[in-house]
Amino acid sequence: MARFKLTIEYDGTPYVGWQRQSNGASVQGALEAAILAMTGETVTLRGAGRTDAGVHATGQVAHVDLAKDWRPAVVRDGLNAHLVEESVVVLAAERVAEDFDSRFSARGRHYIYRILDRRPPPALDRRRVWHRREPLDVDAMNAGARHLIGHHDFTTFRSANCQSKSPMKTLDHLEARRVGDLIEVRADARSFLHNQVRSMVGTLERVGLGAWPPERVAEALAARDRAACAAVAPPWGLYLVGVDY
Amino acid sequence: MARFKLTIEYDGTPYVGWQRQSNGASVQGALEAAILAMTGETVTLRGAGRTDAGVHATGQVAHVDLAKDWRPAVVRDGLNAHLVEESVVVLAAERVAEDFDSRFSARGRHYIYRILDRRPPPALDRRRVWHRREPLDVDAMNAGARHLIGHHDFTTFRSANCQSKSPMKTLDHLEARRVGDLIEVRADARSFLHNQVRSMVGTLERVGLGAWPPERVAEALAARDRAACAAVAPPWGLYLVGVDY
Repeated sequence: MARFKLTIEYDGTPYVGWQRQSNGASVQGALEAAILAMTGETVTLRGAGRTDAGVHATGQVAHVDLAKDWRPAVVRDGLNAHLVEESVVVLAAERVAEDFDSRFSARGRHYIYRILDRRPPPALDRRRVWHRREPLDVDAMNAGARHLIGHHDFTTFRSANCQSKSPMKTLDHLEARRVGDLIEVRADARSFLHNQVRSMVGTLERVGLGAWPPERVAEALAARDRAACAAVAPPWGLYLVGVDY
Repeated sequence: MARFKLTIEYDGTPYVGWQRQSNGASVQGALEAAILAMTGETVTLRGAGRTDAGVHATGQVAHVDLAKDWRPAVVRDGLNAHLVEESVVVLAAERVAEDFDSRFSARGRHYIYRILDRRPPPALDRRRVWHRREPLDVDAMNAGARHLIGHHDFTTFRSANCQSKSPMKTLDHLEARRVGDLIEVRADARSFLHNQVRSMVGTLERVGLGAWPPERVAEALAARDRAACAAVAPPWGLYLVGVDY
């Protein structure tokens, strides 16, 4: 048996999310089908982050055990050959030790959330950015973001469906910056609660717009109440860009 | 009568090109339909660059005469409201003098051609970049590009369908640079021949791959023969990014 680490890029638009589900095509399902087609093996792929429907990735990581000790480049190219009809690509395949676990070995996860704040909607980046018609104040967003960095109870910024045992998380980095026409919000942590990034971005958008003073982010956090969160930002602006091991 | 200058962004994927044609939906046609829906007027829009099927724009410019002297922001927002089903957006509308002509007043046109040179194909940038499986040498591409800069007979780099009276053009700038995962080739000139940018990029790709020495670009140019050109690069990597007046 040989364990492989796969680094994966996908356009989340046509999928119900990372995880295999009964209600539609998933990224995990597309990859498992490609593995079956290539190796004849029915496997279960384990991903580092279970991204929601519409969420994209440029650096998702998963691991899988295969019966044969394939050359890693053959795994990468072989799976991509079976993925041509999908919006999923294997960027890299590596042979890893049997104790490597894409989810539990992860020391850091990196997300970027992209916002286009201009009056006209996007023509080229439709379903790739969150479009806001009013300009956002990046400095104000960062003044709000600073209240969230650190070790906190993130109950306010957690989906009702979140299955994590504890709402305590350590947010290492949360920062907005202007990149061309766009605002990119970067979020780094060992792990996140379900919908945490989108909940935080939805809240920072209120601050960027001037609807919330930055201090209200601290109050929302302290409330430890889902009702204190602003509307959750939509999935199509979110990208899982990398996982550290 | 009031003349308006429109700055336009579009995803060229679903269109037969800028120009209205009998064989499918065009960008020009989408905009003219939006103008008709908004104003009741049947107009002919004039664009600065007649981009081919699949070519994108982030800064196409067109002009149009309307019966009423609308507020420019109303033209922009009104047209966008009628374009929600299209992959076309009006970024800006400006009131201009009656002698402004999007095509003939243009002093400079700027194109960017995007190449993804990595073994796995793109998942997120499908139909947005030209995918090359082998790494390209940007320095070699630029050594080749320098032979094309200046005032030349560009017959080699011109489509057989080109309707320009003369093959003489002045290429102000042609340069490749690495931007993240991508190579962006920037081309600036007062005007270009039909397929000129894609023909030059197809040739520079040969140089980047090492299949052609840079000097062969000079020979191809001097040949003034379409047969001396490398294969034309595909349309989906090309972006009309701006027009100067």
